[in-house]
Amino acid sequence: MIESIITSLMDVDFYKFTMGQLIYKHYKGTKVKFVLTDRNNQRLALSINERFLREQLDHIRTLRFTMSEIHYLRGTNEYSERMFNEDYLQFLTNLKLPEFSLKTADNGGFDLEFYGNWEEVTYWETLAMSVINELYFMNELKNYSTLEHDVVFANGIKNLSKKVEDLTYRHNIVEFGTRRRFSKAWQERVLQYLIDERNVNLKGTSNTYLAMKHNILPMGTFAHELDQGIAGVHYNDLHKAHNELLEKWWEMYGWGLSIALPDTYTTDFFLENFSTEQAEKWKGFRHDSGDPIMFGYKILDFYKQCGIDPLSKLIIFSDGLNINTIHKIYDTFNDKINLSFGWGTNLTNDLGLNPLNIVVKVKESNGNEVMKISDEPKKNSKVSKETIKHYESSLGIRIQ
Amino acid sequence: MIESIITSLMDVDFYKFTMGQLIYKHYKGTKVKFVLTDRNNQRLALSINERFLREQLDHIRTLRFTMSEIHYLRGTNEYSERMFNEDYLQFLTNLKLPEFSLKTADNGGFDLEFYGNWEEVTYWETLAMSVINELYFMNELKNYSTLEHDVVFANGIKNLSKKVEDLTYRHNIVEFGTRRRFSKAWQERVLQYLIDERNVNLKGTSNTYLAMKHNILPMGTFAHELDQGIAGVHYNDLHKAHNELLEKWWEMYGWGLSIALPDTYTTDFFLENFSTEQAEKWKGFRHDSGDPIMFGYKILDFYKQCGIDPLSKLIIFSDGLNINTIHKIYDTFNDKINLSFGWGTNLTNDLGLNPLNIVVKVKESNGNEVMKISDEPKKNSKVSKETIKHYESSLGIRIQ
Repeated sequence: MIESIITSLMDVDFYKFTMGQLIYKHYKGTKVKFVLTDRNNQRLALSINERFLREQLDHIRTLRFTMSEIHYLRGTNEYSERMFNEDYLQFLTNLKLPEFSLKTADNGGFDLEFYGNWEEVTYWETLAMSVINELYFMNELKNYSTLEHDVVFANGIKNLSKKVEDLTYRHNIVEFGTRRRFSKAWQERVLQYLIDERNVNLKGTSNTYLAMKHNILPMGTFAHELDQGIAGVHYNDLHKAHNELLEKWWEMYGWGLSIALPDTYTTDFFLENFSTEQAEKWKGFRHDSGDPIMFGYKILDFYKQCGIDPLSKLIIFSDGLNINTIHKIYDTFNDKINLSFGWGTNLTNDLGLNPLNIVVKVKESNGNEVMKISDEPKKNSKVSKETIKHYESSLGIRIQ
Repeated sequence: MIESIITSLMDVDFYKFTMGQLIYKHYKGTKVKFVLTDRNNQRLALSINERFLREQLDHIRTLRFTMSEIHYLRGTNEYSERMFNEDYLQFLTNLKLPEFSLKTADNGGFDLEFYGNWEEVTYWETLAMSVINELYFMNELKNYSTLEHDVVFANGIKNLSKKVEDLTYRHNIVEFGTRRRFSKAWQERVLQYLIDERNVNLKGTSNTYLAMKHNILPMGTFAHELDQGIAGVHYNDLHKAHNELLEKWWEMYGWGLSIALPDTYTTDFFLENFSTEQAEKWKGFRHDSGDPIMFGYKILDFYKQCGIDPLSKLIIFSDGLNINTIHKIYDTFNDKINLSFGWGTNLTNDLGLNPLNIVVKVKESNGNEVMKISDEPKKNSKVSKETIKHYESSLGIRIQ
């Protein structure tokens, strides 16, 4: 067996815990299925030995949260007082990741599914993606000479240095690159550089393990997963599902984590259903699909209509950022609303090799096929016609 | 004190030993003075703390050849049978480097001199240069952030990779970069890359320690030092000095190390005084100054006049090579004579910072001021008018 890639269950995005506690409290026992999707159809099984992947995933199932890790989570106080309660922490202490189903598909990809209780299955998402990425790039480099290998990292260093030179302290940066990282070691190296650079205003990282290790803030709120999982629970009333998420989230975390992700059923739908009272209370929005400039103006208009000063609000941009889009967004909205940049793939996987475009998404919840309908049709889930029809009629929207 | 840079007396150019044995046998006790010259007048004392330099040089004086190092030298058989005899090896075993004289000069440089018995002083040359280079570049990088620091090495890796891509196995490469290396660690890293690259035909290294450690051939013959030291001994008959070197060298090493360095008193002078018999016996020449293409044609003409097939002979080019000059020389002479490339500064100090241009040369031998008159007037020693006059009259040449 090659070396274990994942060595701590904390090596996941922080939103797994913020969502995880809500799932544990309100939706325990809901059966969900997470599925790996390779948006580029790259026939990953030609690059990644199925046995190696299985060994890495099996190894993750042997991991447990350690006492110190639970201490760290219990001590997390930055968003609200003792945000993780003892029930949930006790649950994490006993957590063993559920089984997975892996086979090589006829198209050369992997059929990789995680089925089980939502509160347990959820942690697989970023772990599986991190492992697949690392095995993939390990294979890409396997016939490289030492010099060729080091040239890859030299490119990574130079590309990062160029980014750092192009940033100022006014850009609020959050490292969001766990799921698409070139490797665990490279993500950590990038993070160390950013911590060390004086003109980089690093607000935190999405990676809980690295946040803990490097004394920076773990950051994240919720993902489409939460919408989709709840949609399965209230499948016959998707409006209810949509509202319940926002209500229960506010109830659990209040202002501290009140960053809404509006593009599960398109941002237009979201804003129509977001009350002025909610808009006043919630801190802001995260952008994850569609044109970021159009999105920004849409949000500004929305706040204007609500009579809210956008300078009291925040947008976190997190959709395929690079230094150019960061500058464009910053220059457009800097004087209009508060900005943060959740920088992922292009930050932790920019070494000259093409990054993968994989996701691990909820496909089924409570026996129902679930989907997202984002601001970018390419990011929509592939689902049956019946499901699309159901979503259209239940939500009263048209799906492109 | 900062970490010791030199940790082995073997970390010198191999020619120190090949010359060293000849000096030990024939010129023991000759008083010589080696002097540091910074050809660029860079005011090194502003970059290098005099105390640090002194500590490093003091540390070198605490080093001794180890038993295994002496075993390695005794076992060196590649050029002639047991080329180092027991007298000399016994001398090395007991060697402690002699004192040095260091002070900061009014011009901001260092007055660094090594005076004493030639057979002992000689080893200081490349050691002093290696130490000064490493301290200088350490200082250049001292205010760099981790990322800026790593960008320097990323540039080094990429520059080296570019060179490697531009080489083929037909180019005979010898690593000659000890004296101008960015650092000891970087030289070793470059060497490891070159060893590992399949399309690089690495014949060996001038660095005895690295040759020993990495199982490659230590390479080198003699330097201007040998001419200059002997010139001081036979100061009133420089022709005799010149001839004695060649005779004693052949007597000691024969064909194996018979690479002549012809530019101590200009190549024209050398060739006029090199007999056809010598030309037939000696393996070839090393080029170290002046236009390499003109030099090559001059050597070809010389062999033609002697009735010798140049394809039985060798030129080692070693003067400020880069990938372009290597290609130019190779393309010009490849089908005419055997070629090797002794690649120094541009190989082991190409990381985006300007290399130093320092030398440590014999300035005085046996109480006489000595000089070299190379094919490139800029490389001539700075000496008194009287010395120039003496050399001109004694050798029957005009000095530019």
